[in-house]
Amino acid sequence: MGVPMSLTFSRRMDRVRPSAIRELLLHGADPSLISFGGGYPDQRLFPVGDLRSVFNDILSGDGGALQYTTSDGLPALRAEIAGRLSRQGTPTRTDDVLIVQGGQQGLDLVGKLMIDAGDTVIVEDPTFLGALIAMNPFEPHYVTVRIDDDGLDVEHLEELLREHPEARMIYTVPDFHNPTGVTMSLERRRRLIDLANQYDLLIVEDTPYRELRYDGEHIPTLRSLDTEGRVVHLGSYSKILAPGMRLGWMVASPEVLQRLSLLKLAADTQSSTLNMSAVVAFARDYDLDDHIGRLRDAYRVKRDVMLSAIDDHFPADVARTTPSGGLFTWVTFPEGFDSAAFMKSVALPDARVAYVPGASFFAGKQQHNHARLNFSSLTEEEIVEGIGRLGDQLHLHLDHPQFTLIEGAHR
Amino acid sequence: MGVPMSLTFSRRMDRVRPSAIRELLLHGADPSLISFGGGYPDQRLFPVGDLRSVFNDILSGDGGALQYTTSDGLPALRAEIAGRLSRQGTPTRTDDVLIVQGGQQGLDLVGKLMIDAGDTVIVEDPTFLGALIAMNPFEPHYVTVRIDDDGLDVEHLEELLREHPEARMIYTVPDFHNPTGVTMSLERRRRLIDLANQYDLLIVEDTPYRELRYDGEHIPTLRSLDTEGRVVHLGSYSKILAPGMRLGWMVASPEVLQRLSLLKLAADTQSSTLNMSAVVAFARDYDLDDHIGRLRDAYRVKRDVMLSAIDDHFPADVARTTPSGGLFTWVTFPEGFDSAAFMKSVALPDARVAYVPGASFFAGKQQHNHARLNFSSLTEEEIVEGIGRLGDQLHLHLDHPQFTLIEGAHR
Repeated sequence: MGVPMSLTFSRRMDRVRPSAIRELLLHGADPSLISFGGGYPDQRLFPVGDLRSVFNDILSGDGGALQYTTSDGLPALRAEIAGRLSRQGTPTRTDDVLIVQGGQQGLDLVGKLMIDAGDTVIVEDPTFLGALIAMNPFEPHYVTVRIDDDGLDVEHLEELLREHPEARMIYTVPDFHNPTGVTMSLERRRRLIDLANQYDLLIVEDTPYRELRYDGEHIPTLRSLDTEGRVVHLGSYSKILAPGMRLGWMVASPEVLQRLSLLKLAADTQSSTLNMSAVVAFARDYDLDDHIGRLRDAYRVKRDVMLSAIDDHFPADVARTTPSGGLFTWVTFPEGFDSAAFMKSVALPDARVAYVPGASFFAGKQQHNHARLNFSSLTEEEIVEGIGRLGDQLHLHLDHPQFTLIEGAHR
Repeated sequence: MGVPMSLTFSRRMDRVRPSAIRELLLHGADPSLISFGGGYPDQRLFPVGDLRSVFNDILSGDGGALQYTTSDGLPALRAEIAGRLSRQGTPTRTDDVLIVQGGQQGLDLVGKLMIDAGDTVIVEDPTFLGALIAMNPFEPHYVTVRIDDDGLDVEHLEELLREHPEARMIYTVPDFHNPTGVTMSLERRRRLIDLANQYDLLIVEDTPYRELRYDGEHIPTLRSLDTEGRVVHLGSYSKILAPGMRLGWMVASPEVLQRLSLLKLAADTQSSTLNMSAVVAFARDYDLDDHIGRLRDAYRVKRDVMLSAIDDHFPADVARTTPSGGLFTWVTFPEGFDSAAFMKSVALPDARVAYVPGASFFAGKQQHNHARLNFSSLTEEEIVEGIGRLGDQLHLHLDHPQFTLIEGAHR
């Protein structure tokens, strides 16, 4: 099989490229490294023993949990999710719910549903890299909307929609945004719904971190404010139970959900009957709210430790966000600083610390003076140690010309 | 949310439609029905107890099995699959293997990789409905190649390739084909590889039933005969272990697999760490070959029972295939007979028997005088009873004008 092939791939593969950042993080994956790079939940907090009992239980039966089931997902799990969302203020019926393979599959399916090559899709600037990775194969034209401490800037969105009335869809992470950690205000959510109605947009509301709120009160979901069935709501068990089970959900109006259901069947037939059965049994036998309460308590402490450590150890001209929940804070270095070059030349080799340089989160013009730092996966000691080491190197090098961005160098 | 929406969906949704057959089977799903319709393995044969031990074991550790892992899948599972394929005559390295969410996801990913709207894709006539469902969203133009008792007709393929030199890809189920049960001869496999080399085709070799051989010797895989890295080999644990775990694999040349891996990441990040860990532990602690041996023994008997019952009870002018493995036989009624109309009007209400009418397996011009019958999921008693009831009704109605197809009535 040594003869080279001459196969022609789909044109969409021009938009499907390995991520340089991913490569860098892979190369840097050794035990002495402190990585703020991933978006992993803390493995030490998984309810391993409870899930062991649950699997023991469902595998004591007749093997039904190992068989095929309907492509929409187990009705009992759809009902559990509908009940939970309804209790939390987003009225949902079992029939409104489609089970998917984590939130990421929801993004693939909604991309397939909505995007023809060249279609305009609006995303936050910056936005979740995984959403870009999911949508890229459908060849959208991205238009980026500003985001600040109150989330998506609806005034800017209105300007953009006047320029781009052809836009079909907007993607947003309203709660504890990835990568910035900010949360969209209620007033802006209402305005976003109005604009979607006016400009005939589908809103994709991605909420993987929503239940991980550490301060303040929940703000209503976009789905609960929706007046015309324009919101596709995505949620996931990855951050509140276990990512290794690969279970998430989509909630949408019947005419949208019916089509997403056909696309789910086409994509992988169904999600794992076994894992769906396990979550149903876990929700029945244990208290998911209590478990999430414990996660919140643990992650709140980690967040506080990270924010204090940044304030104590980073140079004064490095800014950060103050997330009220989720897994990330977003750091802004002085204008002209290149966080990717700094990671490669200093943070990895000298500080033995990794983060995600901010550039890859921008769908339009990349900004190079940011970094996303995760605080959920490490211990408090590791957070303090890693931020300290990074801070020391930043003090040494922040003004060094080597890390001043040469425009165009990343193109 | 009662206001109707005016959303515009992607053009590809014109190719994504609910299946009339699926609806019919759903409506007919009651306990008194004997269904030959699905492609389910026999739930009574799942190694439930062994898997209970396996899950107990992997959930006694540190929770690593519940965490994220790499998008290509657990290296230990990729190595297990590579070793197994190699022992069976298809030399495979760990790096050649990508773990996917059942064979169906492999079809979605290869469709994404290869097909732009209007591209020519060659499929067998008839072919696996799930492959059409997976590829349809990428808007291929299907060209259909004849299939007979020795599998795909390579002479016909050569004619088609002369007419359609632009064809990019051919999809085939060489072993115990779905829906017909036939197996491609070695001579034809070699010729298919030659033609693929000559006409610059990618071959998708789908092998979910390959290990379920009941008579005769294994024929080499297309992948093992591949000389230019043109074969994407798909396999699955669904029929040899448990479909509810949703695990399958893709094996391909590095330049193809690397792209499929990026598409896997985009589609759903990764398959379930938990289920992948369970299969690794099952393969370590138990003997998968022994388990498959037991499946073969049980399914061989079921196949024999079904074929005998058909020969005993169906009218003499109904033909059937003789599968050497797999889950299905394919029945051909006299020319002009409409198997879908018969199922709706007689088989379901009077015989209380379901099957899959053959028409939906044709990507081109539909033939209406076939049915696919599954023998794996029912007991021997149910097979005898169901075939008997169906045979009685066929004797009564086969020549009835109500079931004579009026051309165009299905369009």
